[in-house]
Amino acid sequence: MDVALENVKVLDLTRVLAGPYATMILGDLGADIIKVEMPGKGDDARAFGPYVNEESAYFMSLNRNKRSITLNLKEEEGKRILRDMIKKVDVVVENFRPGTMEKLGLGYEDLKKINPKIVYAAASGFGHTGPYSKRAAYDAVVQAMGGIMSITGQENGKPTRVGTSVGDINAGMFTAIGILSALYRVKETGKGQKVDVAMLDSQVAILENAIARHVVTGEIPAPKGNRHPAIVPFETFETTDGEIMIAAGNDALWAKLCKAMELGELIDDPKYKTNPLRNTNYHSLKGILEYTTKKKSTAEWQEILDGAGVPNGPINTIDKVIEDPQVKAREMILEMDHPTAGKLRVPGIPVKLSDTPGQIRCAAPTLGQHTDEIMREYFEYSDEEIEKLRKTKVL
Amino acid sequence: MDVALENVKVLDLTRVLAGPYATMILGDLGADIIKVEMPGKGDDARAFGPYVNEESAYFMSLNRNKRSITLNLKEEEGKRILRDMIKKVDVVVENFRPGTMEKLGLGYEDLKKINPKIVYAAASGFGHTGPYSKRAAYDAVVQAMGGIMSITGQENGKPTRVGTSVGDINAGMFTAIGILSALYRVKETGKGQKVDVAMLDSQVAILENAIARHVVTGEIPAPKGNRHPAIVPFETFETTDGEIMIAAGNDALWAKLCKAMELGELIDDPKYKTNPLRNTNYHSLKGILEYTTKKKSTAEWQEILDGAGVPNGPINTIDKVIEDPQVKAREMILEMDHPTAGKLRVPGIPVKLSDTPGQIRCAAPTLGQHTDEIMREYFEYSDEEIEKLRKTKVL
Repeated sequence: MDVALENVKVLDLTRVLAGPYATMILGDLGADIIKVEMPGKGDDARAFGPYVNEESAYFMSLNRNKRSITLNLKEEEGKRILRDMIKKVDVVVENFRPGTMEKLGLGYEDLKKINPKIVYAAASGFGHTGPYSKRAAYDAVVQAMGGIMSITGQENGKPTRVGTSVGDINAGMFTAIGILSALYRVKETGKGQKVDVAMLDSQVAILENAIARHVVTGEIPAPKGNRHPAIVPFETFETTDGEIMIAAGNDALWAKLCKAMELGELIDDPKYKTNPLRNTNYHSLKGILEYTTKKKSTAEWQEILDGAGVPNGPINTIDKVIEDPQVKAREMILEMDHPTAGKLRVPGIPVKLSDTPGQIRCAAPTLGQHTDEIMREYFEYSDEEIEKLRKTKVL
Repeated sequence: MDVALENVKVLDLTRVLAGPYATMILGDLGADIIKVEMPGKGDDARAFGPYVNEESAYFMSLNRNKRSITLNLKEEEGKRILRDMIKKVDVVVENFRPGTMEKLGLGYEDLKKINPKIVYAAASGFGHTGPYSKRAAYDAVVQAMGGIMSITGQENGKPTRVGTSVGDINAGMFTAIGILSALYRVKETGKGQKVDVAMLDSQVAILENAIARHVVTGEIPAPKGNRHPAIVPFETFETTDGEIMIAAGNDALWAKLCKAMELGELIDDPKYKTNPLRNTNYHSLKGILEYTTKKKSTAEWQEILDGAGVPNGPINTIDKVIEDPQVKAREMILEMDHPTAGKLRVPGIPVKLSDTPGQIRCAAPTLGQHTDEIMREYFEYSDEEIEKLRKTKVL
């Protein structure tokens, strides 16, 4: 089947999360991802549990659609081979601490001399410039420093880390965006460039209007729980068996909600009839509405509110998410068949392209699974050369 | 200055957040974004406070690098003009409820007949297929349904909404990725396609290893507070004046941390010397470490831990984020000069391209600010025609 990035070849030196997430996006859309790993060890994430037949579920969930070759970049011969490979690929991606590639003589300035069309992408904690550049960062550190924790949490509660690693994942997404933009530019001018994405920068970029709001009003945004900062009612309400998110985003939806809840008398109540009034009288309104939502189950309210056209949803745990009819219909849970771990369900591909849909062509590779295949077919090394390199621990 | 997407023309029908975030990314990287708005009203976000000289800070923070034209798509003449425009652009983006564009006769099937190279991108709550397709969704609803709320929150606490609209923003990012991939494909084959991105799908995609972990272990992930699910110590600790995030991601960092905290005797303590042991004896270790962190301020600990090479960071509120030296050095807070609102600080551009850096070329437009300019120069309408269209409320 045709894929969007059919002719894009990516040399992928990344490990753990931000970098592998970026190359997973490109691989899902059809790029050939050659994952270069340290012989005998590989991507650090291979050591993260839980395991299925000795394969890391964490690793497998981030490295489908990639082929693995081993190559020791600390050996001169390994570096020579990498330089050789650079001539034949379109993109190289790494997420080492800034300065690491330069020390190996494999920085962008070195590699662009070998292939001026190369797109060199680096994802790092703080970026390749600035006073913190050389510091190590983890997701939790950039979530703390980047502001998102300060606005996440229950009302009057503690700053809270987002439960998924948005510090890494958003950096991975911006890295993919940078690579695709640079590849487009190569098509126009034949010239490659460096893409430098920082996890901290990416956190700042997703704060979006919180920054404008702060600079305009001086207000320092704090955790607001599950409440919308300006729209009421727009939050979670307790039911007999859990909670439900109800989002009445405008006055028409407010009226529909009141009718659906058999609280029609509230629609034109002088305390609640407009959104500014509902904000002012938030606490009493929350009381009335929650008194009512507590009388039925979440599923009952879902049916009532869906029928009335009021946006709402249950707070799904992961087991519910993967069984959701819409998630299934959109193929957002896919099964991949791993050579040793067997079948594993993983998130699908959120970018749906009509003509060249993304696909899982192969499961995550075992360490060095494709070394021979790639060295032979792609870079034209002979079996003898490969054998020799393996003996000397270069591969 | 050269920009990456110099020759990309985007007709932008989007409003509020997910769609405008996608086109902001493309505009930042140099695409010409023609924002099409309803005469007299425009993007709904223009009505979201707070305001600066009657301009919405929310709107301004999402619509820099765009030009605004008004066009009434409910009028036949307006539709005719849009079809005309489709011939001259590369991309059209919308985030209406699925079915809206088809009802207007402006769906992908209609538009590709006019321009087979067109990339048609749609961002919506649940996507253009599946049983929930036609339902309205808000960020809070997809955060609830998509699982992220169920894993965000204090330990043993309530599911918590992420404080920034990741439901919209991640959909915007995946939409940009889809558009860039499809544009790359156009360069190869000359053929456009439809990009269909759902907010719910995007939430599932960013759960990443939480899904694999669940399907492998059966465990249903719950809010873990600020604690790493598998690494100790890796969380926030109280200080004299707040909290600090400390991330000792491996045994070497554990040793460095103990020395820096003058708790060297813990390094080889049989209760704590390996990460599995530190997980088992988490509560006692947390007690010891926090007893110590409470003796100094966050700033004092930062200096000590930075000196020792232990990843750490303060929990910055937004006012601190925008003054952070690294954020400033990376130009992640930029000032734009709006014709009526004056200077406004907004997030910078996280995709740093060495040869064609992104830039803020212009502030967010006032409603219809560029109607004449674009209709005249870009689509070759005469002043007379423009005047007539304005009188009949088409523009």
